Amino acid sequence: MDKLIFVTTNKYKFKEINDILKKYDIELEHFDHEYSEAKEDSLEEVSKKAAKILADKLGKPLIVEDTGIFFKSYNNFPGALPKFVINGIGFEGIFRLLKDKDRTAYFKSVIAYCQPGQKPILFIGEISGKILKEVIEPDIEAMPYTHIFVPDGTGKAVVQMTLEEKNAISHRGEAARKLAEYLKLK
Amino acid sequence: MDKLIFVTTNKYKFKEINDILKKYDIELEHFDHEYSEAKEDSLEEVSKKAAKILADKLGKPLIVEDTGIFFKSYNNFPGALPKFVINGIGFEGIFRLLKDKDRTAYFKSVIAYCQPGQKPILFIGEISGKILKEVIEPDIEAMPYTHIFVPDGTGKAVVQMTLEEKNAISHRGEAARKLAEYLKLK
Repeated sequence: MDKLIFVTTNKYKFKEINDILKKYDIELEHFDHEYSEAKEDSLEEVSKKAAKILADKLGKPLIVEDTGIFFKSYNNFPGALPKFVINGIGFEGIFRLLKDKDRTAYFKSVIAYCQPGQKPILFIGEISGKILKEVIEPDIEAMPYTHIFVPDGTGKAVVQMTLEEKNAISHRGEAARKLAEYLKLK
Repeated sequence: MDKLIFVTTNKYKFKEINDILKKYDIELEHFDHEYSEAKEDSLEEVSKKAAKILADKLGKPLIVEDTGIFFKSYNNFPGALPKFVINGIGFEGIFRLLKDKDRTAYFKSVIAYCQPGQKPILFIGEISGKILKEVIEPDIEAMPYTHIFVPDGTGKAVVQMTLEEKNAISHRGEAARKLAEYLKLK
Protein backbone atom coordinates (compact mmCIF):
# COMPACT_ATOMS: atom_id res chain seq x y z
CA MET A 1 0.00 0.00 0.00
CA ASP A 2 1.09 3.56 -0.68
CA LYS A 3 2.17 5.56 2.31
CA LEU A 4 -0.80 7.50 3.60
CA ILE A 5 -0.49 11.28 3.92
CA PHE A 6 -2.17 13.17 6.77
CA VAL A 7 -2.62 16.84 5.92
CA THR A 8 -2.72 18.82 9.16
CA THR A 9 -0.99 21.70 10.89
CA ASN A 10 -1.76 20.08 14.26
CA LYS A 11 1.06 17.96 15.65
CA TYR A 12 -1.16 16.49 18.39
CA LYS A 13 -3.66 15.17 15.90
CA PHE A 14 -0.89 13.63 13.85
CA LYS A 15 0.58 11.90 16.89
CA GLU A 16 -2.76 10.47 17.97
CA ILE A 17 -3.80 9.08 14.61
CA ASN A 18 -0.31 7.85 13.78
CA ASP A 19 -0.20 5.92 17.04
CA ILE A 20 -3.35 4.02 16.11
CA LEU A 21 -2.50 3.40 12.45
CA LYS A 22 0.92 1.98 13.20
CA LYS A 23 -0.76 -0.77 15.25
CA TYR A 24 -2.37 -1.77 11.96
CA ASP A 25 0.96 -1.50 10.10
CA ILE A 26 -0.20 1.55 8.21
CA GLU A 27 2.49 4.13 7.62
CA LEU A 28 1.41 7.74 8.02
CA GLU A 29 3.29 10.75 6.67
CA HIS A 30 2.79 14.24 8.08
CA PHE A 31 2.15 16.99 5.51
CA ASP A 32 2.06 20.25 7.48
CA HIS A 33 -0.16 22.34 5.25
CA GLU A 34 -3.11 24.68 5.77
CA TYR A 35 -6.27 24.52 3.70
CA SER A 36 -9.29 26.78 3.55
CA GLU A 37 -12.49 25.93 5.43
CA ALA A 38 -15.86 27.55 4.77
CA LYS A 39 -17.40 29.03 7.89
CA GLU A 40 -20.83 27.63 7.09
CA ASP A 41 -19.61 24.06 6.57
CA SER A 42 -20.11 21.12 8.91
CA LEU A 43 -17.19 18.90 9.97
CA GLU A 44 -18.26 16.43 7.29
CA GLU A 45 -18.31 19.07 4.55
CA VAL A 46 -15.00 20.62 5.62
CA SER A 47 -13.11 17.32 5.67
CA LYS A 48 -14.76 15.93 2.54
CA LYS A 49 -14.02 19.01 0.43
CA ALA A 50 -10.44 19.39 1.66
CA ALA A 51 -9.61 15.71 1.18
CA LYS A 52 -10.97 15.72 -2.38
CA ILE A 53 -9.15 18.88 -3.44
CA LEU A 54 -5.84 17.88 -1.84
CA ALA A 55 -5.85 14.25 -3.05
CA ASP A 56 -6.49 15.37 -6.62
CA LYS A 57 -3.81 18.04 -6.35
CA LEU A 58 -1.11 15.88 -4.76
CA GLY A 59 -2.02 12.75 -6.71
CA LYS A 60 -1.69 10.61 -3.57
CA PRO A 61 -4.06 8.95 -1.09
CA LEU A 62 -4.49 11.06 2.01
CA ILE A 63 -6.57 11.91 5.03
CA VAL A 64 -7.70 15.11 6.63
CA GLU A 65 -9.44 15.36 9.99
CA ASP A 66 -11.81 17.93 11.41
CA THR A 67 -12.94 18.10 15.03
CA GLY A 68 -15.82 19.94 16.66
CA ILE A 69 -17.17 20.35 20.16
CA PHE A 70 -20.87 20.73 20.82
CA PHE A 71 -22.33 22.28 23.99
CA LYS A 72 -25.80 21.04 24.85
CA SER A 73 -26.71 24.33 26.54
CA TYR A 74 -25.84 26.47 23.53
CA ASN A 75 -27.45 25.02 20.48
CA ASN A 76 -24.33 22.92 19.76
CA PHE A 77 -22.03 25.95 19.74
CA PRO A 78 -19.04 26.09 19.06
CA GLY A 79 -19.64 23.17 16.65
CA ALA A 80 -17.15 23.11 13.83
CA LEU A 81 -15.37 26.26 15.07
CA PRO A 82 -13.79 25.25 18.41
CA LYS A 83 -10.48 27.00 17.75
CA PHE A 84 -12.12 30.28 16.77
CA VAL A 85 -14.12 30.27 20.00
CA ILE A 86 -11.32 29.32 22.41
CA ASN A 87 -9.00 31.86 20.78
CA GLY A 88 -11.67 34.54 21.15
CA ILE A 89 -13.19 34.02 24.59
CA GLY A 90 -10.71 31.65 26.24
CA PHE A 91 -11.40 29.30 29.11
CA GLU A 92 -12.83 32.21 31.09
CA GLY A 93 -15.44 32.92 28.44
CA ILE A 94 -16.46 29.27 28.28
CA PHE A 95 -16.81 29.09 32.06
CA ARG A 96 -18.95 32.23 31.98
CA LEU A 97 -21.23 30.73 29.34
CA LEU A 98 -21.71 27.49 31.26
CA LYS A 99 -22.06 28.84 34.80
CA ASP A 100 -25.11 27.12 36.40
CA LYS A 101 -25.93 25.48 33.06
CA ASP A 102 -25.98 21.90 31.86
CA ARG A 103 -22.28 21.24 31.12
CA THR A 104 -22.88 18.28 28.82
CA ALA A 105 -20.84 18.40 25.63
CA TYR A 106 -19.58 16.03 23.00
CA PHE A 107 -16.64 15.94 20.68
CA LYS A 108 -16.90 14.68 17.14
CA SER A 109 -14.05 13.77 14.82
CA VAL A 110 -14.46 13.29 11.10
CA ILE A 111 -11.63 11.72 9.12
CA ALA A 112 -11.97 11.95 5.35
CA TYR A 113 -9.92 9.48 3.33
CA CYS A 114 -9.51 10.20 -0.36
CA GLN A 115 -7.66 8.64 -3.27
CA PRO A 116 -6.89 10.81 -6.31
CA GLY A 117 -9.82 10.94 -8.73
CA GLN A 118 -12.15 9.20 -6.29
CA LYS A 119 -14.79 10.24 -3.80
CA PRO A 120 -13.78 10.80 -0.18
CA ILE A 121 -14.91 8.29 2.44
CA LEU A 122 -15.74 9.46 5.97
CA PHE A 123 -14.95 7.83 9.32
CA ILE A 124 -16.61 9.33 12.37
CA GLY A 125 -16.07 9.10 16.11
CA GLU A 126 -17.80 10.77 19.04
CA ILE A 127 -17.31 11.07 22.77
CA SER A 128 -19.64 12.54 25.38
CA GLY A 129 -18.71 14.19 28.63
CA LYS A 130 -18.84 17.30 30.75
CA ILE A 131 -17.07 20.65 30.68
CA LEU A 132 -15.22 21.25 33.94
CA LYS A 133 -15.37 24.36 36.13
CA GLU A 134 -11.64 24.90 36.13
CA VAL A 135 -8.61 24.39 33.91
CA ILE A 136 -6.79 21.13 34.69
CA GLU A 137 -2.99 21.04 34.27
CA PRO A 138 -2.80 24.48 32.65
CA ASP A 139 0.96 24.20 32.25
CA ILE A 140 0.88 21.07 30.12
CA GLU A 141 1.01 21.88 26.42
CA ALA A 142 -1.98 20.17 24.84
CA MET A 143 -5.04 20.94 22.75
CA PRO A 144 -7.08 23.52 24.70
CA TYR A 145 -10.33 21.66 25.34
CA THR A 146 -8.46 18.65 26.76
CA HIS A 147 -7.86 20.81 29.85
CA ILE A 148 -11.57 21.27 30.55
CA PHE A 149 -13.30 18.13 29.26
CA VAL A 150 -14.01 14.97 31.25
CA PRO A 151 -15.30 12.07 29.17
CA ASP A 152 -18.24 10.21 30.73
CA GLY A 153 -17.20 7.35 32.96
CA THR A 154 -13.55 8.34 33.29
CA GLY A 155 -13.46 10.83 36.16
CA LYS A 156 -10.50 12.68 34.71
CA ALA A 157 -9.74 15.39 32.20
CA VAL A 158 -8.43 14.29 28.81
CA VAL A 159 -5.16 16.12 29.47
CA GLN A 160 -4.52 13.77 32.41
CA MET A 161 -4.66 10.67 30.24
CA THR A 162 -1.81 8.86 28.52
CA LEU A 163 -1.90 8.68 24.74
CA GLU A 164 -3.01 5.05 25.08
CA GLU A 165 -5.87 5.89 27.42
CA LYS A 166 -6.99 8.81 25.31
CA ASN A 167 -6.88 6.90 22.05
CA ALA A 168 -8.84 4.00 23.53
CA ILE A 169 -11.89 6.16 24.16
CA SER A 170 -11.61 9.38 22.19
CA HIS A 171 -13.64 10.58 19.20
CA ARG A 172 -10.45 10.78 17.14
CA GLY A 173 -9.34 7.31 18.25
CA GLU A 174 -12.67 5.85 17.21
CA ALA A 175 -12.57 7.52 13.80
CA ALA A 176 -8.95 6.42 13.28
CA ARG A 177 -9.73 2.78 14.13
CA LYS A 178 -12.63 2.78 11.68
CA LEU A 179 -10.27 4.13 9.02
CA ALA A 180 -7.66 1.49 9.84
CA GLU A 181 -10.19 -1.37 9.68
CA TYR A 182 -11.36 -0.09 6.31
CA LEU A 183 -7.82 0.17 4.92
CA LYS A 184 -6.91 -3.34 6.11
CA LEU A 185 -9.96 -4.86 4.40
CA LYS A 186 -9.50 -2.96 1.16
CA MET B 1 -23.84 53.90 -15.71
CA ASP B 2 -24.80 50.24 -15.49
CA LYS B 3 -27.19 49.32 -12.74
CA LEU B 4 -25.19 48.19 -9.73
CA ILE B 5 -25.91 44.74 -8.27
CA PHE B 6 -25.77 44.12 -4.53
CA VAL B 7 -25.28 40.42 -3.78
CA THR B 8 -26.72 39.71 -0.34
CA THR B 9 -29.26 37.49 1.41
CA ASN B 10 -29.84 40.23 3.98
CA LYS B 11 -32.80 42.49 3.22
CA TYR B 12 -31.83 44.98 5.93
CA LYS B 13 -28.40 45.55 4.44
CA PHE B 14 -29.94 46.05 1.02
CA LYS B 15 -32.40 48.60 2.36
CA GLU B 16 -29.71 50.60 4.16
CA ILE B 17 -27.24 50.79 1.30
CA ASN B 18 -29.95 51.37 -1.29
CA ASP B 19 -31.26 54.31 0.73
CA ILE B 20 -27.87 56.00 0.60
CA LEU B 21 -27.04 55.23 -3.03
CA LYS B 22 -30.35 56.57 -4.33
CA LYS B 23 -29.47 59.98 -2.88
CA TYR B 24 -26.55 59.89 -5.31
CA ASP B 25 -28.82 58.71 -8.17
CA ILE B 26 -27.20 55.31 -8.20
CA GLU B 27 -29.60 52.48 -8.91
CA LEU B 28 -29.07 49.34 -6.87
CA GLU B 29 -30.45 45.90 -7.75
CA HIS B 30 -30.88 43.17 -5.14
CA PHE B 31 -29.45 39.76 -6.06
CA ASP B 32 -30.46 37.42 -3.24
CA HIS B 33 -27.68 34.87 -3.42
CA GLU B 34 -25.42 33.09 -0.94
CA TYR B 35 -21.69 32.75 -1.39
CA SER B 36 -19.08 30.83 0.54
CA GLU B 37 -16.89 32.54 3.16
CA ALA B 38 -13.70 31.05 4.59
CA LYS B 39 -13.74 30.88 8.37
CA GLU B 40 -10.20 32.19 8.66
CA ASP B 41 -10.79 35.24 6.45
CA SER B 42 -11.08 38.86 7.59
CA LEU B 43 -13.97 41.06 6.47
CA GLU B 44 -11.70 42.51 3.81
CA GLU B 45 -10.72 39.10 2.45
CA VAL B 46 -14.28 37.76 2.49
CA SER B 47 -15.75 40.71 0.60
CA LYS B 48 -12.83 41.05 -1.82
CA LYS B 49 -12.86 37.37 -2.83
CA ALA B 50 -16.64 37.16 -3.15
CA ALA B 51 -16.88 40.38 -5.21
CA LYS B 52 -14.18 39.23 -7.61
CA ILE B 53 -15.63 35.75 -8.15
CA LEU B 54 -19.21 36.99 -8.56
CA ALA B 55 -18.40 39.96 -10.83
CA ASP B 56 -16.41 37.73 -13.17
CA LYS B 57 -19.18 35.11 -13.13
CA LEU B 58 -22.09 37.47 -13.68
CA GLY B 59 -20.20 39.78 -16.02
CA LYS B 60 -21.64 42.85 -14.28
CA PRO B 61 -20.41 45.45 -11.79
CA LEU B 62 -21.49 44.59 -8.28
CA ILE B 63 -20.94 45.03 -4.58
CA VAL B 64 -20.86 42.68 -1.63
CA GLU B 65 -20.71 43.76 1.99
CA ASP B 66 -19.37 42.04 5.08
CA THR B 67 -19.87 43.23 8.65
CA GLY B 68 -18.12 42.32 11.87
CA ILE B 69 -18.40 43.26 15.51
CA PHE B 70 -15.36 43.42 17.76
CA PHE B 71 -15.50 43.20 21.56
CA LYS B 72 -12.63 44.94 23.32
CA SER B 73 -12.79 42.52 26.26
CA TYR B 74 -12.47 39.40 24.12
CA ASN B 75 -9.61 39.82 21.74
CA ASN B 76 -11.98 41.28 19.10
CA PHE B 77 -14.29 38.28 19.17
CA PRO B 78 -16.72 37.67 17.39
CA GLY B 79 -14.93 39.58 14.60
CA ALA B 80 -16.00 38.47 11.16
CA LEU B 81 -18.37 35.82 12.55
CA PRO B 82 -21.12 37.80 14.34
CA LYS B 83 -23.98 35.67 13.02
CA PHE B 84 -22.34 32.39 14.03
CA VAL B 85 -21.90 33.70 17.57
CA ILE B 86 -25.36 35.20 18.08
CA ASN B 87 -26.99 32.07 16.63
CA GLY B 88 -24.94 29.93 18.99
CA ILE B 89 -24.96 31.73 22.33
CA GLY B 90 -27.71 34.32 21.84
CA PHE B 91 -28.10 37.58 23.73
CA GLU B 92 -27.87 35.66 27.01
CA GLY B 93 -24.46 34.29 26.13
CA ILE B 94 -23.18 37.71 25.14
CA PHE B 95 -24.43 39.24 28.39
CA ARG B 96 -22.71 36.45 30.33
CA LEU B 97 -19.44 37.10 28.55
CA LEU B 98 -19.54 40.84 29.22
CA LYS B 99 -20.82 40.84 32.82
CA ASP B 100 -18.60 43.24 34.82
CA LYS B 101 -16.32 43.67 31.79
CA ASP B 102 -15.49 46.60 29.54
CA ARG B 103 -18.47 46.66 27.16
CA THR B 104 -16.71 48.67 24.44
CA ALA B 105 -17.22 47.29 20.95
CA TYR B 106 -17.06 48.47 17.40
CA PHE B 107 -18.75 47.53 14.17
CA LYS B 108 -16.92 47.49 10.89
CA SER B 109 -18.45 47.30 7.43
CA VAL B 110 -16.47 46.48 4.31
CA ILE B 111 -18.06 47.02 0.91
CA ALA B 112 -16.19 45.52 -2.03
CA TYR B 113 -17.01 46.96 -5.44
CA CYS B 114 -15.90 44.98 -8.46
CA GLN B 115 -16.21 45.27 -12.20
CA PRO B 116 -15.81 42.11 -14.33
CA GLY B 117 -12.17 41.38 -15.06
CA GLN B 118 -10.93 44.03 -12.66
CA LYS B 119 -9.66 44.14 -9.10
CA PRO B 120 -12.13 44.82 -6.30
CA ILE B 121 -12.02 48.15 -4.49
CA LEU B 122 -12.84 48.36 -0.78
CA PHE B 123 -14.83 50.99 1.14
CA ILE B 124 -14.74 50.78 4.90
CA GLY B 125 -16.77 52.27 7.72
CA GLU B 126 -16.58 51.87 11.50
CA ILE B 127 -18.62 52.84 14.52
CA SER B 128 -17.73 52.58 18.19
CA GLY B 129 -20.06 52.08 21.10
CA LYS B 130 -21.10 49.93 24.02
CA ILE B 131 -22.93 46.64 24.39
CA LEU B 132 -26.04 47.08 26.56
CA LYS B 133 -27.06 44.95 29.54
CA GLU B 134 -30.49 44.14 28.15
CA VAL B 135 -32.25 43.62 24.84
CA ILE B 136 -33.97 46.78 23.60
CA GLU B 137 -37.21 46.42 21.64
CA PRO B 138 -36.98 42.62 21.39
CA ASP B 139 -40.20 42.46 19.38
CA ILE B 140 -38.97 44.63 16.53
CA GLU B 141 -37.60 42.59 13.65
CA ALA B 142 -34.10 43.86 12.99
CA MET B 143 -30.51 42.66 12.80
CA PRO B 144 -29.69 41.08 16.19
CA TYR B 145 -26.88 43.29 17.43
CA THR B 146 -28.93 46.46 16.78
CA HIS B 147 -30.94 45.47 19.89
CA ILE B 148 -27.92 45.57 22.20
CA PHE B 149 -25.55 48.20 20.73
CA VAL B 150 -25.50 51.91 21.60
CA PRO B 151 -23.21 53.99 19.37
CA ASP B 152 -21.05 56.48 21.26
CA GLY B 153 -22.70 59.87 21.70
CA THR B 154 -26.22 58.76 20.78
CA GLY B 155 -27.71 57.44 24.02
CA LYS B 156 -29.92 54.96 22.21
CA ALA B 157 -29.79 51.49 20.73
CA VAL B 158 -29.46 51.23 16.97
CA VAL B 159 -32.85 49.51 16.78
CA GLN B 160 -34.48 52.69 18.16
CA MET B 161 -33.18 54.82 15.30
CA THR B 162 -34.90 55.68 12.05
CA LEU B 163 -33.21 54.53 8.86
CA GLU B 164 -32.06 58.15 8.35
CA GLU B 165 -30.53 58.40 11.80
CA LYS B 166 -28.85 55.03 11.52
CA ASN B 167 -27.42 55.65 8.08
CA ALA B 168 -26.05 59.03 9.13
CA ILE B 169 -23.72 57.47 11.69
CA SER B 170 -23.40 53.76 11.04
CA HIS B 171 -20.41 51.77 9.81
CA ARG B 172 -22.45 50.61 6.82
CA GLY B 173 -23.64 54.13 6.07
CA GLU B 174 -20.06 55.42 6.09
CA ALA B 175 -18.86 52.66 3.76
CA ALA B 176 -21.82 53.22 1.43
CA ARG B 177 -21.18 56.98 1.20
CA LYS B 178 -17.53 56.36 0.38
CA LEU B 179 -18.63 53.98 -2.38
CA ALA B 180 -21.14 56.52 -3.71
CA GLU B 181 -18.57 59.33 -3.78
CA TYR B 182 -16.20 57.07 -5.67
CA LEU B 183 -18.82 56.05 -8.22
CA LYS B 184 -19.84 59.67 -8.84
CA LEU B 185 -16.26 60.73 -9.53
CA LYS B 186 -15.46 57.80 -11.77
